[in-house]
Amino acid sequence: MERAFISHLRERLPTNENVVVGPGDDAAVLKLFDDANIVVTVDALTDGVDFALSEVDASRIGHKALAVNFSDLAAMAARPVAAFVSLVLPKFEGDRIARQLYDGILPLADRFGVAIAGGDTNSWDGPLAIAITALGETTPRGPLTRGGARPGDALLVTGSLGGSILGKHLDFTPRVEEAIFLHQRHALTAGIDISDGLSRDLHHLCHESGCGAMLRLDSIPIADAARTLAANETSSKTAVEHALSDGEDFELLFAAPEAVAETILREQPLDVPISLIGQFTNRNEVIALAADGTQTTLPNTGWEHRI
Amino acid sequence: MERAFISHLRERLPTNENVVVGPGDDAAVLKLFDDANIVVTVDALTDGVDFALSEVDASRIGHKALAVNFSDLAAMAARPVAAFVSLVLPKFEGDRIARQLYDGILPLADRFGVAIAGGDTNSWDGPLAIAITALGETTPRGPLTRGGARPGDALLVTGSLGGSILGKHLDFTPRVEEAIFLHQRHALTAGIDISDGLSRDLHHLCHESGCGAMLRLDSIPIADAARTLAANETSSKTAVEHALSDGEDFELLFAAPEAVAETILREQPLDVPISLIGQFTNRNEVIALAADGTQTTLPNTGWEHRI
Repeated sequence: MERAFISHLRERLPTNENVVVGPGDDAAVLKLFDDANIVVTVDALTDGVDFALSEVDASRIGHKALAVNFSDLAAMAARPVAAFVSLVLPKFEGDRIARQLYDGILPLADRFGVAIAGGDTNSWDGPLAIAITALGETTPRGPLTRGGARPGDALLVTGSLGGSILGKHLDFTPRVEEAIFLHQRHALTAGIDISDGLSRDLHHLCHESGCGAMLRLDSIPIADAARTLAANETSSKTAVEHALSDGEDFELLFAAPEAVAETILREQPLDVPISLIGQFTNRNEVIALAADGTQTTLPNTGWEHRI
Repeated sequence: MERAFISHLRERLPTNENVVVGPGDDAAVLKLFDDANIVVTVDALTDGVDFALSEVDASRIGHKALAVNFSDLAAMAARPVAAFVSLVLPKFEGDRIARQLYDGILPLADRFGVAIAGGDTNSWDGPLAIAITALGETTPRGPLTRGGARPGDALLVTGSLGGSILGKHLDFTPRVEEAIFLHQRHALTAGIDISDGLSRDLHHLCHESGCGAMLRLDSIPIADAARTLAANETSSKTAVEHALSDGEDFELLFAAPEAVAETILREQPLDVPISLIGQFTNRNEVIALAADGTQTTLPNTGWEHRI
């Protein structure tokens, strides 16, 4: 890596009051306040799988690489504190790509007051890969895990779902503020961000919570992009099927006791709508309930890449 | 990634009392004790640059990928607590490679009581890349940074240097216990692990500390592997030149006030020897002092990949 770029970069990296020792030493040293727990997530994005470097400006890829990590912290109702950026750059135009990646990374870090406290920049003969580690802190109510939903809890979701491939998967804003606001103010019981698709991520919630769910298909908030895909493409998927399976919506899917859910739905305290799309059950499966009353078991489709 | 492998892996992952929420949620939640600061480091290793997958068993690569991070924590005198493993696997034989990588990762984590608290496993059409994030905690004396050396301080190093390409660069044991022991017991002023080579890393120490150094060439502990390289190869490098420039020794290079250094050298409290190889100066350069009294300015050669 060109040393001039590294020096230039170091001067641009945002910092904050949590950073005791920043970039330039063997490791970063951070301090959390108020006895918070540390929340850590790692996501690697690769060319040809999570993005196509040949088709989009690398700044959008940089934004996405950091935003997916913030979305994971949001799903835990944690405040992002610091991020660490590992780049594996192709040798051809590696410096230009790195600069553009940071053109997407830095504004998002700034927006959430997050320090870029370290990282590792490499180049090789392979394609672009980015692995970002984001570190956050819990709020006084503690982490919002996947495992706390109980039969009878309401199933809620922010925003609208499906069709993110038309653009949202690159340009979304992680629901950090929304998650922290909701979890601080209301006793949510479980949460996840929708990265693998509503169907798949609902199965994750149910599995970790040891319960099932009834999903009301006609209550799912369908994104315009999902309707566009359903109307235009030659495939047989309907808009609701896109909303169920597309993934990378990066909306919050969460559980709350019925009374809490009623308050949230009545108040609608966020800039994005919150929808009630079903409830958790004591059955060991996810049931899709159609408008005509038909019930079908929703398969746990999708892919799994986390350890 | 094959789901059976992920499930199998999750059961094998070591944990510890710092882990509040482990793998399987959107992020890991960790708790440190005794008001420790958090120390975080990230290192990415790539096929063809840091290792050759075609030439070595992947378990050695897994070991190295974790060990380089532990070495960075050691350089801060921090105790490793948890690690997060991002794998980008080639599609061909990706599962086999992943299993072998973990065959190297898990024993090293176990040995240091470190939890593998999360990660991300991907596959693609490119070569193997591994990015590991290691998180540690400071000891009561706080972090050992690169920036605390003062003119007059002694320059010390553990073990012997050079020729690591013959094997040590893959199989080394990070100097975690040694660094913590020394920093707890003695007032070290600065430290770094030798990854870029003695010459380069000494320049890092000097740069961050705002001083220079005088390096006694005839005091440098030269590894047998450096002598082997010097004797066998067609290049013109001497053994001491290998010790100066080879890199990936993963020994500790550190500074201590003269009286402290005398105690350490007399006691030799580690299983590996500690050598006095020079002292810090108030000049703005690193001088190599030969046995015959000749002084030459040591260039800041090597490569730089950290932000």
